[in-house]
Amino acid sequence: MFKKFMLTALVAASVTGTVNSAEKIDLEVMTAIRHEGFVNSQVMKTLTHLTDKIGSRLTGSPAMREANDWTLAKLQEWGLKNAHLEPFDFGRGWTFEHVSIAMTAPKVVSLQGIPVSWHPGTQGEIEAEVIHINTSNLANLKKYEGKLKGKIVAISSKKKIRDPREKMKERLSEDRLDEMTAFKVPNKVGEELFPIDMFASMINKAGKIDAFLKKEGALASVNGSWRDAALINATAYNLRKGFTPEIPQVMLSAESYNRILRRLENGEPVKIKMNVGATFYDADPNGYNTIAEIPGSGRKKSEIVMAGAHLDSWFMGDGAVDNGAGVAVVMEAIRILKALNIKPKRTIRVGLWSGEEQGLYGSLEHVFKHYADFPKADVESRKRMAPTFQRDFKAAPSVKKAHEKFSVYYNLDNGSGKIRGIYAEHNSAAAAIFKQWLAPFKDLDAKTVTLNRTSGTDHLSFQMIGLPGYQFIQDPLDYGSRLHHTQIDVIDHVEEADLKQASVIMAAFIYNAAMRDERMPRKPMPKARQ
Amino acid sequence: MFKKFMLTALVAASVTGTVNSAEKIDLEVMTAIRHEGFVNSQVMKTLTHLTDKIGSRLTGSPAMREANDWTLAKLQEWGLKNAHLEPFDFGRGWTFEHVSIAMTAPKVVSLQGIPVSWHPGTQGEIEAEVIHINTSNLANLKKYEGKLKGKIVAISSKKKIRDPREKMKERLSEDRLDEMTAFKVPNKVGEELFPIDMFASMINKAGKIDAFLKKEGALASVNGSWRDAALINATAYNLRKGFTPEIPQVMLSAESYNRILRRLENGEPVKIKMNVGATFYDADPNGYNTIAEIPGSGRKKSEIVMAGAHLDSWFMGDGAVDNGAGVAVVMEAIRILKALNIKPKRTIRVGLWSGEEQGLYGSLEHVFKHYADFPKADVESRKRMAPTFQRDFKAAPSVKKAHEKFSVYYNLDNGSGKIRGIYAEHNSAAAAIFKQWLAPFKDLDAKTVTLNRTSGTDHLSFQMIGLPGYQFIQDPLDYGSRLHHTQIDVIDHVEEADLKQASVIMAAFIYNAAMRDERMPRKPMPKARQ
Repeated sequence: MFKKFMLTALVAASVTGTVNSAEKIDLEVMTAIRHEGFVNSQVMKTLTHLTDKIGSRLTGSPAMREANDWTLAKLQEWGLKNAHLEPFDFGRGWTFEHVSIAMTAPKVVSLQGIPVSWHPGTQGEIEAEVIHINTSNLANLKKYEGKLKGKIVAISSKKKIRDPREKMKERLSEDRLDEMTAFKVPNKVGEELFPIDMFASMINKAGKIDAFLKKEGALASVNGSWRDAALINATAYNLRKGFTPEIPQVMLSAESYNRILRRLENGEPVKIKMNVGATFYDADPNGYNTIAEIPGSGRKKSEIVMAGAHLDSWFMGDGAVDNGAGVAVVMEAIRILKALNIKPKRTIRVGLWSGEEQGLYGSLEHVFKHYADFPKADVESRKRMAPTFQRDFKAAPSVKKAHEKFSVYYNLDNGSGKIRGIYAEHNSAAAAIFKQWLAPFKDLDAKTVTLNRTSGTDHLSFQMIGLPGYQFIQDPLDYGSRLHHTQIDVIDHVEEADLKQASVIMAAFIYNAAMRDERMPRKPMPKARQ
Repeated sequence: MFKKFMLTALVAASVTGTVNSAEKIDLEVMTAIRHEGFVNSQVMKTLTHLTDKIGSRLTGSPAMREANDWTLAKLQEWGLKNAHLEPFDFGRGWTFEHVSIAMTAPKVVSLQGIPVSWHPGTQGEIEAEVIHINTSNLANLKKYEGKLKGKIVAISSKKKIRDPREKMKERLSEDRLDEMTAFKVPNKVGEELFPIDMFASMINKAGKIDAFLKKEGALASVNGSWRDAALINATAYNLRKGFTPEIPQVMLSAESYNRILRRLENGEPVKIKMNVGATFYDADPNGYNTIAEIPGSGRKKSEIVMAGAHLDSWFMGDGAVDNGAGVAVVMEAIRILKALNIKPKRTIRVGLWSGEEQGLYGSLEHVFKHYADFPKADVESRKRMAPTFQRDFKAAPSVKKAHEKFSVYYNLDNGSGKIRGIYAEHNSAAAAIFKQWLAPFKDLDAKTVTLNRTSGTDHLSFQMIGLPGYQFIQDPLDYGSRLHHTQIDVIDHVEEADLKQASVIMAAFIYNAAMRDERMPRKPMPKARQ
């Protein structure tokens, strides 16, 4: 009944009620945004600084702090107010300086690898025999007691080599966009969009394997990247002081790793020589979000429209498509609005998060601090994780005053592909608004609004506490197929025209939300659950 | 002895004469070949030994010699006769043992690279400022005089980053196979299928750049791989004693290289730290081909049917698809024929070449020694190349006695993709025969005969002196798109079923040529030309 009524309303283009009113769109402003974004773009200049000048930005590292400081200064330079760095308890900083690794027996074979994050260096060159252990079940480890002393331990099975994707780099077809609008009824009850317990279990297991290897006197470990074709994902998550691994680990390419394991399977003793330089930073356990505002004016100035992207990255490449691209687009959208000298009704706030890659830490701490928090919970399985996760996420969030004043958050974090639409996160009222806002950008291929959710990035932090947070639909390009969390995430693989397009649409969405009569519509608040 | 069941020609039964006679095909033998090749295959065992046990096989290296010795012993073990290693003057042997390379200023950035062949090591760690020079024109080098002392020199422009191929891994469609049968009228007169002068020019230029850098006191050079997405081709060709480079060179991934060049373009001083261990081997300047035979019997035993593949490889991976696969297939075909205890009329000879990767040296020396040679020529531009190329290839080849006794040579060298047909190299008479021979393998997807030529491998050596040499049409898979001459050319990326299929067809083609009444038809002899 309700649904049918709404549809009728849509078709009739009636403008009654808060759920489906006609949006006023200022096409002159839209034109000015397009002009500034396409003709005077600085998005590549911003991205170049983030990637080529600052480089990879692992949370806690000096480069991440440099990125915080630079974005803060840049936003201030553009005239933003209330610019500051927002700290949160993260963990240790870590960088690696050099790595060399080779098989030295039975043959000399050069191997390709990258040190795994938050593991120590080797303190000079080490050379040792390799032993392969089965870590699929921690109970199995017992049988290796007394056998690992002085060894380098291969800790996973042979890596699966996959056929390359049918299309390595692609844009969303009309068919695919249509499919995305078919609603997926959720399988599981609940609002906990982030799989914290699964994540905790992975972190605990890695920690226990490291502790066992240390206890047994192993010198180092090697693993193989889940990606193949020489692409290396060397990410790990035990980053809290007191819990970081105690022996070095190198993530080899799948091909390098399998070369070792096949020789071991064949009964040949294998030796590896390796040398890893790595540094921990403990002077400051905080991560920082860069926050700045274009203040609103008038009676709605205490309301907030927010746009953000995570500024931190992994360390294998330069964090260009993940997520320098998103940051550059959000900053460019803000720059465009400042260049147009718009006077927003609501305050526009930008949030450049850190700690996203390790679990949305920065954006979660931001929403917990300002809008709503969950009660503390002493969960044994999460003791290795930052305090952010020491909460009872099954409780109802306890709402703060500013919650009421928050309108909407937009996020960009799916590579450098242009915006094709937006995930409306089960919010039909928002969807109806977005549909209208996208109309002026049909020629830019952005038109799809789906009621489905998407996952894996910082809009979730807002969704978790009942605030409207959205991530755009972006062309996948080769983000998922080869760039994401690998050493080739560098600016070479960024699509400039796509970033310009995204900047324009981001600016328009920010502008429209800042200027519209009403706060953006919401979904029902998350409830406590079992 | 098998009971004979003969399949007579399926095509052109009415046509008589030597050019298009009906082939007698022994289907019972074809069945036995299929059975041995599919049910008792050892092709992966052979390939595993070549790649995982012996590893990469750069001509002149100890591993190449190990591969020569192992294949020789294996062929003897299978009962082949007249097995021997055939030497030819090649140049220096070279291996590298280890590499580490990182940017140390203005940021510490780990770089990925592989030492370039036939370049010396660094004699320990070096660290120096990077200077980028334009080497597109050798005359330009003069302007860098006095500027390179103590520097690490970046010797090429920024590397182009390409979109990944539409299909990274593919099999030939029916349409594509059809297209391949459309004859391409040659653009250029002449039989010189190998672009020797272009090749010489490339080698000379690389040598001159190295000499200039050495004279100016540069410490090392870096280059960027023409492939991107972390794949590294680190091949170079100045391998003759007296001409090998005098300063180290590392081939970086395109992404690593561009990261350096963008910083330099941006006016930032860049420093690199590198450490390369490399070894030259001068005790024996020879390369070796592994040669062995299944002797014929009766009046045709002095005639030769030959199959071969190059045993050497580059050094970045294990030389699995280039060309362990081809060697394993040829050896397996020979093993199948020995297992069937066939008694060929003609002598079946196997040739496992070396020096192919540097210019078909092994197979050229083989044909020059046995079948026909070109007059010596003192060509200044080729003085850096092995004696193989110190010949006048525009003269008519001077034919030796055994030329008349040679029937056919089959080659396999285009990855691990199965056989889809054969390039008949402008020979209509051979094409008509091949068409009939392929008939029993239609269910294996091998049916296409094209009169076009193919290039780039050892059948050319036979074609150059007027002997029938053929390379099969193979499914491309991901050979050209990512495996060829990169560090991921390892057995992980080999398709086992395809190698079995190819082994069966190779065995059938060898058998048919060894048993048919006539020697295989020929094209007109190459003539002298201007």
